[in-house]
Amino acid sequence: MIEELQQVLRSEIPLTNDICIETKAFSGLALTLFAPLAKNINHKSTAFGGSLYSVSVLSGWGLIYLVLKQHGLTGHIVIQESNTKFLRPVASDIIATSTFSSQEQCDKFIHRYKRKNIARVKLISKILSDDLPAVIFEGSYVVHS
Amino acid sequence: MIEELQQVLRSEIPLTNDICIETKAFSGLALTLFAPLAKNINHKSTAFGGSLYSVSVLSGWGLIYLVLKQHGLTGHIVIQESNTKFLRPVASDIIATSTFSSQEQCDKFIHRYKRKNIARVKLISKILSDDLPAVIFEGSYVVHS
Repeated sequence: MIEELQQVLRSEIPLTNDICIETKAFSGLALTLFAPLAKNINHKSTAFGGSLYSVSVLSGWGLIYLVLKQHGLTGHIVIQESNTKFLRPVASDIIATSTFSSQEQCDKFIHRYKRKNIARVKLISKILSDDLPAVIFEGSYVVHS
Repeated sequence: MIEELQQVLRSEIPLTNDICIETKAFSGLALTLFAPLAKNINHKSTAFGGSLYSVSVLSGWGLIYLVLKQHGLTGHIVIQESNTKFLRPVASDIIATSTFSSQEQCDKFIHRYKRKNIARVKLISKILSDDLPAVIFEGSYVVHS
């Protein structure tokens, strides 16, 4: 299922080919995306903020896409607002993991979407550097049919 | 001066070549950057959120770079935190304008940086779509020598 997500991202958002985004792992409540540093480097030989943001926002987008798919659902997934904290530079490949805070949050989101054909969900994505939090992304997404 | 900024962005952040970023106008208190929709499109034929973010964050980065340069200064410019509101889709080329809130804000920032070799500044970047605000980006940057 995550190979299909990678193809969806690569075919529908051309810039993800330049970022070289890859889907790495999906657990049902979390999705991990990867992008190599070399393609996303800045003048300080660390990851460009726009790349860190792109991988973060897509990890949340992709997590929603996969959870909907698991439930036989589809929808338009839109980012509405985000807050991003850059705590330290990322001097390695970018690995972003987006998670539901709990199974209950995920279940409520799916239940609401089935009932209303629209639902909002807030997801946190994290990128580590040297095992320490480097980027904390909080995204508010809306899904509508 | 803005041609030089474009070259700096293009040479130091390779992804800006894929985004096709261009510097358009600098007034002393505001900088406008441009990126064509075609290179930054998503599955809905509107601009990808990661591209909108990238152009926004770089409009603030570039504004600080140019204002420092005007004062004969250089420094390391780092984004620390950002809040981004996506109010409506952008179905046209991306034009992001970052501005100091006032000449006083700009002067205080430069004065502080000269005195302390470090200064923080909060800049707002806006992207319009059909003449209405589409993306409001608030970035907190730090500059250090």
